Amino acid sequence: MTKTPEQYPVDKTNRVKRRHDRGFYDHETVHALLDAAALCHVSYVIDGQPYCTPTLFWREGSRLYWHGSSASRMLKNLSKGEPACLTATHLDSLVLARCAFNHSADYRAVMAFGHARLLDNQAEKEHALVMMVDRFFPQRTSQLRPSTKKEIKATAVVYMDIEKASAKIRARGVVDDEEDYALPIYAERIPVRMVLGAPEPCPRLLPGVTRPETLAPYRAGRLLYDALTEAHQATYADPHDKNG
Amino acid sequence: MTKTPEQYPVDKTNRVKRRHDRGFYDHETVHALLDAAALCHVSYVIDGQPYCTPTLFWREGSRLYWHGSSASRMLKNLSKGEPACLTATHLDSLVLARCAFNHSADYRAVMAFGHARLLDNQAEKEHALVMMVDRFFPQRTSQLRPSTKKEIKATAVVYMDIEKASAKIRARGVVDDEEDYALPIYAERIPVRMVLGAPEPCPRLLPGVTRPETLAPYRAGRLLYDALTEAHQATYADPHDKNG
Repeated sequence: MTKTPEQYPVDKTNRVKRRHDRGFYDHETVHALLDAAALCHVSYVIDGQPYCTPTLFWREGSRLYWHGSSASRMLKNLSKGEPACLTATHLDSLVLARCAFNHSADYRAVMAFGHARLLDNQAEKEHALVMMVDRFFPQRTSQLRPSTKKEIKATAVVYMDIEKASAKIRARGVVDDEEDYALPIYAERIPVRMVLGAPEPCPRLLPGVTRPETLAPYRAGRLLYDALTEAHQATYADPHDKNG
Repeated sequence: MTKTPEQYPVDKTNRVKRRHDRGFYDHETVHALLDAAALCHVSYVIDGQPYCTPTLFWREGSRLYWHGSSASRMLKNLSKGEPACLTATHLDSLVLARCAFNHSADYRAVMAFGHARLLDNQAEKEHALVMMVDRFFPQRTSQLRPSTKKEIKATAVVYMDIEKASAKIRARGVVDDEEDYALPIYAERIPVRMVLGAPEPCPRLLPGVTRPETLAPYRAGRLLYDALTEAHQATYADPHDKNG
């Protein structure tokens, strides 16, 4: 895979219009926010009705993958693909200001645009089904009971090459109108974080079966953001800069 | 406002097809999951291109509200409204099973369908701008510098009456094929939670300005889910069962 260009093209679809100072289009920013998320929301259209579907997803280069649970309805036009928008959002805080208008939230979000297609090449699909697990839990599939043909057939994989994307970031906490700082009004930023709890081993583990070292990125109290970033880097780091 | 019926209608748009045992349509389940979320993703269509936009939102009865930052492009057809889908998702865990196919996640999500419209009645808009803050922080607007006409004009409020909705819930942890429990493979559930950090008071507070008691729902270590639920109930609880 050749090294991808460093910035996604910008046009009216993905240009950050409101608060354009919060917009970013470079691969580094966009990819980092995608790789730190397990959950995204995908928008697509069926008979004029938009759907907003939550799903697990992952990135490989400039390609995004997710489960195709709605594939039978969604992907009627396989040749052209269906226009889609995949969004991953990290909510970082709630912001209480001195007037209603300046109440806000800190967040980091990516909107990626492209055409969703069903992955029907068998070898590519089998690769994707491995990465769907290993991207979150490095080397995990090598420790598992192999997938059956029936399981592979039952899983639809959808992919979308990112044609356009934008990241939008607010990380400013309380920002009030200058004259409002003179008012005796309380204001604060309330941080919020996705935190890992203590792993709960399956109650039916066989005696002597212990937690693999490869799950070390996932430990209680850690940010999900950091664990996912570390797992993605562990799985995709290679000398060919495949995922640059 | 009359008491709303207890269940949202079900048709091909919102029926949970894949894993239909995970689907719920009753108001109690749908509303509780909406009220426990600050962030949603809204899907709408412009010139055939779906958009998936993250935004803060809130519920009043069977009506959802959010900021209309994209209103100028999104809401061209004010008379009929634009078809939209608003989804709120709570990710509860990552699930590692004994085969790739049974890897999963616990989650609780609501998809709500309807037509998005711009709120242009001035009195309704001013009420909504109060509730946009008070729904998250009970009685907050009574403590603030009043909004100016310019601020009210600069804020677009979008609303959508829920025509159809579904909740989809997975809360099962590790579930493997029966024969796979005999394999010496590690499996676990990794809980994830949106947790509040310690509130960060604005560094420019005037001397003597202290945190109002009304912010008590937001304390460090608590789940955002619980704080939002408590705040919503504190703001909307009334003897007329307005928000039933």
